Amino acid sequence: MLVTCVHVYVKKDRVADFIAATVKNHEASTAEPGNMRFDVLQSRDDPTRFLLYEAYESEEAALAHKRTEHYLSWKGEVADWMETPRAGVPYDVISPTDRERW
Amino acid sequence: MLVTCVHVYVKKDRVADFIAATVKNHEASTAEPGNMRFDVLQSRDDPTRFLLYEAYESEEAALAHKRTEHYLSWKGEVADWMETPRAGVPYDVISPTDRERW
Repeated sequence: MLVTCVHVYVKKDRVADFIAATVKNHEASTAEPGNMRFDVLQSRDDPTRFLLYEAYESEEAALAHKRTEHYLSWKGEVADWMETPRAGVPYDVISPTDRERW
Repeated sequence: MLVTCVHVYVKKDRVADFIAATVKNHEASTAEPGNMRFDVLQSRDDPTRFLLYEAYESEEAALAHKRTEHYLSWKGEVADWMETPRAGVPYDVISPTDRERW
């Protein structure tokens, strides 16, 4: 089990586009068999900053995500909307370890 | 619905203590009626850095958490184990908005 927190800083005039594209990616990603969560969050302090909380049951499942059509399509679509390159921070899961609680 | 990402930087010799205390807090917090998630994560790049992913269905539920015995007990217990003061970053939820998917 692992979680990647992807921090995204979006150009102000692309926030609505980014949300629409990312909600679409969320829907397809949560349907992947090894996905546990794919939460899309917007900073309260700065609405141009987003956090994607991507939880997968294995390294393989996380890698498989990066080969999906929906991920590649999202990646291409949002590329020009970033204010700075997005940054992924990897974490191990301490709790909960029970798959049923994800 | 809101998520607070609490970033914690723990003294190296207190990592095991911090994990034990925080897993206990996780168990009690996830039993709160308004809690949606309370994930405890450890950085892969630096095992002294942790992320608490605290999701609540309302502001009121998040505030109620701070008045619980388990939170106050955890707060007191870990206070001296921090390398730097912990920092909470508040987010609004974009997806999923369906309560059943939390």
